[in-house]
Amino acid sequence: MTMLDTAIRDAGACAYVAYGPSADANMRYLTRFTTTDPVVFIKKPGERGMLIVPQMEYERAVRESGAAVLTRSDAGFFEYLKDGASRTEATARMIAGLSGGAVLVPERFPLGLARALEVSVPVILDAGTVEAMRAVKSPEELERIRSVQRATEAAMDRAIALIRGARPVDGVLHRGGEPLTSERVRGEMHSLLFGFGCSAKETIVACGADTALPHHTGSGPLLAGEPIVIDIFPQDEKSGYHADMTRTVVWGEPSVEIREMYEAVRDAHEMASSLVRPGAGGGDLYQRVVEFFRERGYATDTQGFVHSLGHGVGLDVHEQPSLGPVGETLVAGNVVTIEPGLYYKGVGGVRLEDMGAVSPDGFDRFTQYPMELIL
Amino acid sequence: MTMLDTAIRDAGACAYVAYGPSADANMRYLTRFTTTDPVVFIKKPGERGMLIVPQMEYERAVRESGAAVLTRSDAGFFEYLKDGASRTEATARMIAGLSGGAVLVPERFPLGLARALEVSVPVILDAGTVEAMRAVKSPEELERIRSVQRATEAAMDRAIALIRGARPVDGVLHRGGEPLTSERVRGEMHSLLFGFGCSAKETIVACGADTALPHHTGSGPLLAGEPIVIDIFPQDEKSGYHADMTRTVVWGEPSVEIREMYEAVRDAHEMASSLVRPGAGGGDLYQRVVEFFRERGYATDTQGFVHSLGHGVGLDVHEQPSLGPVGETLVAGNVVTIEPGLYYKGVGGVRLEDMGAVSPDGFDRFTQYPMELIL
Repeated sequence: MTMLDTAIRDAGACAYVAYGPSADANMRYLTRFTTTDPVVFIKKPGERGMLIVPQMEYERAVRESGAAVLTRSDAGFFEYLKDGASRTEATARMIAGLSGGAVLVPERFPLGLARALEVSVPVILDAGTVEAMRAVKSPEELERIRSVQRATEAAMDRAIALIRGARPVDGVLHRGGEPLTSERVRGEMHSLLFGFGCSAKETIVACGADTALPHHTGSGPLLAGEPIVIDIFPQDEKSGYHADMTRTVVWGEPSVEIREMYEAVRDAHEMASSLVRPGAGGGDLYQRVVEFFRERGYATDTQGFVHSLGHGVGLDVHEQPSLGPVGETLVAGNVVTIEPGLYYKGVGGVRLEDMGAVSPDGFDRFTQYPMELIL
Repeated sequence: MTMLDTAIRDAGACAYVAYGPSADANMRYLTRFTTTDPVVFIKKPGERGMLIVPQMEYERAVRESGAAVLTRSDAGFFEYLKDGASRTEATARMIAGLSGGAVLVPERFPLGLARALEVSVPVILDAGTVEAMRAVKSPEELERIRSVQRATEAAMDRAIALIRGARPVDGVLHRGGEPLTSERVRGEMHSLLFGFGCSAKETIVACGADTALPHHTGSGPLLAGEPIVIDIFPQDEKSGYHADMTRTVVWGEPSVEIREMYEAVRDAHEMASSLVRPGAGGGDLYQRVVEFFRERGYATDTQGFVHSLGHGVGLDVHEQPSLGPVGETLVAGNVVTIEPGLYYKGVGGVRLEDMGAVSPDGFDRFTQYPMELIL
C-alpha cells in the first residue's frame, strides 16, 4: 500500500480513512473483511491499518483481515454515545481520536460523516488513489478473476447447450415438451455457478425485441430466428472478484439485419482487442470503435452503438479503467472487457463481450469461448 | 413523498438529490430502478422526481421508474466534459443546473460530489428523511416482505429436513453415504430460493465451535450433538425486499449448556416479542433483554449476548429501526427482527430470529416456522 502512504503524505494528512460495508469494493480491497454493516478502516503511513468493528465481528475480522482489529467499544464509541453524541458523531469522534489529525478520504466517503469529522479535524479529498490501486491487479488477483471466468464460461456453455438442443413449435423454442424460457436458462446458469462458489445477479437472457435495450434482463419463452443476448457477470463469494461475459446467439435463421450487425460487432471486437496494450487510451479505443461503426453505416447516438466499449473488472463488476468517452490510459495489470454492441428498435440487439488482462504484449484474453451466432 | 417535500422546504432547499446505484436502498426506494452503475435522482417539492441515466438505460428507466427520465446527454453531461470538467464536476454541474439552487442530500451522499456541487450551490445535509420513510412500510411493501419470508421458510425447512434425515458415523452427520456439509445445506437452500426468484448471500450454516462467532458462515461436515446455527436473509430479485430468519438445531443430544442457552434465548424471544408495539423504544427492548439474560446468569459484553436484539428489514437487510443500544421508537408499519442470541467460546452459540410487522396490536409475526432445538 505504498501508493496510499504516498497519497497520505502528499496531502499532509495523518491517515487515510474509509467507511462502508464490504459491498464497497474499496473497503473489501483494503481489509479483505466481508460485512453487511459499515465498518471503519484507518491507515497511517508505514502501518498495516486498523479495522474497527462491532464486538460480535471481532474474531472473524482478526481471521479474515490483515489489519489490526479494534472493537467499537475499545475505540470509545459507546462512551461518546453516552456523552450524547449521535451515531455519526460518535463514529467521527472515534475516527478523529485514532487518526490524530487531518484525514484523507475517498470521493465516496459519506458527506454526513465528513461534516461530523470536520468539527475536529480537516477532511481532505483523495483523488482516486485506492480506485487506481485496484485497477492494477496483482498476479494473485489475476488468477482469482481467471477462475471466475472459467465458471462463467461453464455457465454460458450450459445456456447455449440448452438453446441449441431446443426445437421450435410455432416459432417458440421448446425443450421436454415445454417452452424454453429466459427464466429457466438463467436458473440453470445460476445453479451451475453455485457449484463454483459464485453468485450472479441481474443475468441477462433477453430475446427478440427485448434485446434492443442493452440491459433488459429478459423474460418468457425464447423464440427461433430471433437474437438471444446472454450477459452474465458472476461474483466469487469467497474472493469477491467478478468476471463478465456476453454472447449473442440465434436458433435457426436470423434476419439479414441481425446477421450484418453481428458481423460488424465481431469485427469491431477483433479490431479493438488488437489495439489493447499498455499506453493505449481507453477513450481513444472507444473512439476508434465509434468511427468503425459509423463507417459501416451504423448510428452511435440514441440507436446503434449506445454504450461504452468496455470497463475494468475486479471487486466491482464496473471499475477503472473505462473504455468510454472519458477513459483512462491502459497499463499492464488492468483487467478489461471489450464489448461492442449494436441496438435497433424493431430489429434487436447484438453484443459480444470478452474479458482479459492488459499485458506488455497486448490483450491477454481470459475468455476462451467461441463466438458463434447461429446454433 | 410528502415527508420528503416537507424536508426540502424546511431546509430551504430547491431539491433533494441522491446519487448511487440501486444497491443503495435509498435510490432503489426513490426510483424503483435497478442499476449497477450510479445514477442521479433529483426531487423538487410537488414533482415526481427526475432520474438521470446513461443513454443505454433510458427506455428501461422509463419502464421501471415512476420518475421523469432524462439522459445524461440531454442533461448536458457531455458538454460539461468537453468544457474540461472531470466526471464528478460534470455530474455536479448537471445537478446544479437541474436543481436551480440549494440541494438537500442524504448522509451517505458522496463527499467528492458534494464538494464539486458546493462550488455553485449550497449543499444541505438531510437528517435521515428517506431512511425514516423506508422504515414505515406500505401495505404493498409488507406483502412483498411476507412473500420473501415464505420463500425463506421453505429454504429453512429444506435445511432442517436435510439435517433431520442424516445419520451420524463417528459423530459426523452423513446422508447418502457422504458427510453432510455446511456447503451442501447452503447450496440446497440457495437452489430452492432461486425457484422463488430470490438470491441469498453469506448464508450461515455453522456448527459446533464455529457457532460461538455470530457471523461465522460455517464450513465442512456437520456434527451430531453440536449446535447448528442456520441464518438466512434472501433478497427478492424483482422487488429488492429481504427477509431474515435464524434457527438453531441439534441432531441428537445437545450439551446441558446448549440446552439451557436455548431455553434462555427462546424465553428472551418470547418476552421481547410480547413487548413489540407502536411507541416501544428499540433501545428499551434491547435493554430489557440485556437485563433478562443477566438475571439468568449470562454475560452481555464480550461473551453471551453480544449483538443487538434486532433491526428493521426492507430493501436493506439491516435498516431502521434498530433494536440495539441506540434504538428508534417503534411505529406501526415497521418490519423488525427479534433475534436474541448467546455465544460462548468452547460451548457454542444459539440464536433464534423471527421477523414481523409492528402493528397497532403488537407484533404481527410473519415467521410461521416452529422453534425446535432437538431434531
